[in-house]
Amino acid sequence: MEKKKEISMAVIRRLPKYQRYLYELMRHDIDRISSKELSEKIGFTASQIRQDLNNFGDFGQQGYGYNVKDLLGKINSILGLDHEYNIVIIGAGNIGQAVANYTKFDRLGFKLSAIFDVNPKLVGIKIRDVKIKDIDELDDYLKNNKVDLGVICVPKSNAQSVCDILVANGVEGIWNFAPIDLETGGKVIIENVHLSESLLTLTYLLNCQKNNTD
Amino acid sequence: MEKKKEISMAVIRRLPKYQRYLYELMRHDIDRISSKELSEKIGFTASQIRQDLNNFGDFGQQGYGYNVKDLLGKINSILGLDHEYNIVIIGAGNIGQAVANYTKFDRLGFKLSAIFDVNPKLVGIKIRDVKIKDIDELDDYLKNNKVDLGVICVPKSNAQSVCDILVANGVEGIWNFAPIDLETGGKVIIENVHLSESLLTLTYLLNCQKNNTD
Repeated sequence: MEKKKEISMAVIRRLPKYQRYLYELMRHDIDRISSKELSEKIGFTASQIRQDLNNFGDFGQQGYGYNVKDLLGKINSILGLDHEYNIVIIGAGNIGQAVANYTKFDRLGFKLSAIFDVNPKLVGIKIRDVKIKDIDELDDYLKNNKVDLGVICVPKSNAQSVCDILVANGVEGIWNFAPIDLETGGKVIIENVHLSESLLTLTYLLNCQKNNTD
Repeated sequence: MEKKKEISMAVIRRLPKYQRYLYELMRHDIDRISSKELSEKIGFTASQIRQDLNNFGDFGQQGYGYNVKDLLGKINSILGLDHEYNIVIIGAGNIGQAVANYTKFDRLGFKLSAIFDVNPKLVGIKIRDVKIKDIDELDDYLKNNKVDLGVICVPKSNAQSVCDILVANGVEGIWNFAPIDLETGGKVIIENVHLSESLLTLTYLLNCQKNNTD
């Protein structure tokens, strides 16, 4: 496992994409694939694919390519998908509901055990059989249940206090949709989905293109 | 503008973060800031900040630092935020509604002009004064209105056909939330928000940490 330390975030962020394409191949009953064929589908060069995968072991076979099922199994294991995760969502607005309703997460092994919101009109409502609880119950809930991941979907102003409760109760991973950089003292893994940063990347690229073609 | 071509995506993806922090400084009436102080807030090294910003011009002044308002104005302009964008959202499910309801986008200059959905129960409903139209009207709408950006929030199975309509009508930027890599023939800028890829990056990092501390 020591090898992992050296792997760049760029490689890590490509892994889920491999996983997605390998699932597609499985769905189409494709048993094996060369790095060249995979390259045509996924849009990375064959050499990039070989380099990326070599970070984690010796997966391909010269003249045979990759066994799709084996490679998917290995990538799933590298991505930590060989076991389940108990998750809670804090904030049952549009984003929280979108995450709660995304059945693909369930198939990948993410088990939604509770949703919390501050709005009394939402408390008690069920989303996919999971009842929305009052946010005041979050601390107790975390003390009495093993939760692996917390998904923060509250407004920016409340995100840090929710984060503090998660961290104080030993939640090890936070998926943060609030447009703020959370402070955790470094013990917790945080993955941000900052939508406006994504949108501004788009406008930057759009303007670059315009300026180059004008 | 020729300089822009050489700028790495890593730098580009940091720009919106600078923008967010500079807005915060403005809100707190801070007029100027050194790269060292900015570094403490934003979490990049001072040298990284200087390097990043130097890609776009000579913004800081030795012994003075950065003028917050000027730098924000310049970054906004680099990000293409010196003019407005007409946007349409296709798919009025949770994600589409989240984007439609995100008032920050409005403040940044993104004007939502129409929302489309296939579900007759949603058609006619208003989100922030914008009525949801039938998706069959999308093509006509694009022919009769100047639309800069399309936000694709439909399920994976319909995303490519929606994308085709946007591209055929000259929409130049697509913000794609469907878990699929869209094909456009290369003329259009696509920015993906692939939520499951973000979540799997989180589990990867979580497992790395566990394996390193076990």
